Amino acid sequence: MTKAIGYAAQHSFSRLKPLPFERDEPRPNEVEIAVMFCGVCHSDIHQVRNEWSNTVYPCMPGHEVVGRVMRIGDAVRLHMVGDIVGVGCMVDSCRQCEPCRAHDENYCEGPNSWLATYNGPMVPAKMAPTHANMYGRDNTYGGYSSVLVAPEDFVLSIPSGLRPEVAAPILCAGVTTFSPMKHWGVKAGDHVGIVGFGGLGDMAVKLARAMGAEVTVFTRSKDKLDAIRGLGAKGVLSGDVEAMGAHRNSFDFMLDTVPEKHDVDPYVTMLKRDSTLAVVGAIEPLAPENNQERVMHRKSVAGSLIGSIAETREVLEFCAAHGIGPDIEVIPIQEINHAYRMVEKGDVRFRYVIDMASLAAEEAA
Amino acid sequence: MTKAIGYAAQHSFSRLKPLPFERDEPRPNEVEIAVMFCGVCHSDIHQVRNEWSNTVYPCMPGHEVVGRVMRIGDAVRLHMVGDIVGVGCMVDSCRQCEPCRAHDENYCEGPNSWLATYNGPMVPAKMAPTHANMYGRDNTYGGYSSVLVAPEDFVLSIPSGLRPEVAAPILCAGVTTFSPMKHWGVKAGDHVGIVGFGGLGDMAVKLARAMGAEVTVFTRSKDKLDAIRGLGAKGVLSGDVEAMGAHRNSFDFMLDTVPEKHDVDPYVTMLKRDSTLAVVGAIEPLAPENNQERVMHRKSVAGSLIGSIAETREVLEFCAAHGIGPDIEVIPIQEINHAYRMVEKGDVRFRYVIDMASLAAEEAA
Repeated sequence: MTKAIGYAAQHSFSRLKPLPFERDEPRPNEVEIAVMFCGVCHSDIHQVRNEWSNTVYPCMPGHEVVGRVMRIGDAVRLHMVGDIVGVGCMVDSCRQCEPCRAHDENYCEGPNSWLATYNGPMVPAKMAPTHANMYGRDNTYGGYSSVLVAPEDFVLSIPSGLRPEVAAPILCAGVTTFSPMKHWGVKAGDHVGIVGFGGLGDMAVKLARAMGAEVTVFTRSKDKLDAIRGLGAKGVLSGDVEAMGAHRNSFDFMLDTVPEKHDVDPYVTMLKRDSTLAVVGAIEPLAPENNQERVMHRKSVAGSLIGSIAETREVLEFCAAHGIGPDIEVIPIQEINHAYRMVEKGDVRFRYVIDMASLAAEEAA
Repeated sequence: MTKAIGYAAQHSFSRLKPLPFERDEPRPNEVEIAVMFCGVCHSDIHQVRNEWSNTVYPCMPGHEVVGRVMRIGDAVRLHMVGDIVGVGCMVDSCRQCEPCRAHDENYCEGPNSWLATYNGPMVPAKMAPTHANMYGRDNTYGGYSSVLVAPEDFVLSIPSGLRPEVAAPILCAGVTTFSPMKHWGVKAGDHVGIVGFGGLGDMAVKLARAMGAEVTVFTRSKDKLDAIRGLGAKGVLSGDVEAMGAHRNSFDFMLDTVPEKHDVDPYVTMLKRDSTLAVVGAIEPLAPENNQERVMHRKSVAGSLIGSIAETREVLEFCAAHGIGPDIEVIPIQEINHAYRMVEKGDVRFRYVIDMASLAAEEAA
């Protein structure tokens, strides 16, 4: 076992606090990583607060992890000690179902689905007795920690052109927006709509622009319009009925990043015939959808979940090649509870990234 | 002008009654049809009752029309006097927008969309002053009538293998189920789910079976299970949680024909990854949809509206070639109000078809 320390919540209503713990030794196919940076995702907050009713405590979040390889198992061939590597939302999958065999492990249909980097296996604790638990554990601890251990094929090489702290949010926010744009075939000249301009929206705009698309962003916040224009996109206030009406039937694809219950009908209205609104932020019941718009122009509302390991590799390389990445603010882990409050207020358009060097103060304490 | 008689409603709360009226003379590109049979569609009832808030009165329904060509305009080349022909939901479209040029005139994006066979142009009367009305009229009268006049390219030849009264419901119920199955690529060996077993469900099962698919039907009515089995499909009660759970992630495509607000989540749950539930019956806000299922397996909920003229031609030929057609009950028009009550009760699994010879009694009166 390896001594480690991280920040975790003990209850849905408690703040994150230091938690000393032990990591397993790396197995033959596993890599041990000294965590350098970890991004803060809105879903970390949903999970800590048990808003999806499946949180196992202690809950140590973090699935945008970048660090340095410290040790490798005997069978590891993909990474070497000293490499800068990343871990995203998944640290394993069943490897046997049809999606896993098709390299779509983010849609794993194994008995416990893919193994989440934290709070995995994704089975509510109360249901554990009735489900086989193929991963042989009740909980996983994520990247808000000094050390992480993961199988080599769920560990990504970070291209040398990307700074480690910038690469971190690409592992979730980046691939979550890249995967649906790729799946639904966004291409140069397309008109792409992005709903919401937080951590995901920021990445979505940059990726879509780099793909050659014309981009319009819908945001509730007037304060964000300048930043949107700064990325070469058009900004529209999501309450502006007239401006939204002008976009009726005009988008080839729309990506909705709003991380909570909302009404998607206004966006469906703006899709072209035969086009899709992919909702990636909200994992919950949405406001009632009016089927009329879908019927009248054969439109679709779809979901999409993060992305595969292959797509994560691809988006890291795409960002390095195009010189793009998230806008970040690096914070010490001692500021994590304040950062959560800021994200919950929805005013943040950059991604918080925790500098894990700040954990040294806790280890010393 | 040609003297005609039909059955129409004068208000949302009134019964259908005989209404003498006059049809325009056929223009050079138009065909005058002596109506022989007209199917009764659930949407006729929605429209008569003004449930979509856009009904213009008098409202004379009927968009599953089969009859004999009596006169043709000078420029008509597609039909001859004496031919048995059909008219579906549309009698014209703008002919200039992108969908019209792509022969998807059922998704016409012209100022008044396509011209409905009855209650067209589809612009609420109260909005008429603010909209251009490209078709130059306030209302159209449908096929519950002795005579219909339509442009030749919106008139379908009825294949000789189909009896006229059987062909009628194919013009709406048939193409409405055929078009989405074709668009989403239903093929031999696919597992197709059909939700609802009324007029559309009956056609959907027969078409999917003829395409070589394995079919499961979800119905609220125990009484329909035998008929479903009789078509070579599996029947499941839509309240049977256990039976539905067994179908989780198992359908390549699902078609939802329920003509009113309902909860689609249980059906989304039964789709395979990357598959689509096409909702064709309900043109209204549905119950709130849980986005979690869509996200977790990249599933889509889509709409689809009737079908194009080309697809209508194709489904008529497909039905003739495979010897399939709707289960019908032929009624005199004097029974239409009773038939409406039966359809509203939802117990009808055949399609009512009006024998227009019964109008002779009204003409004599």
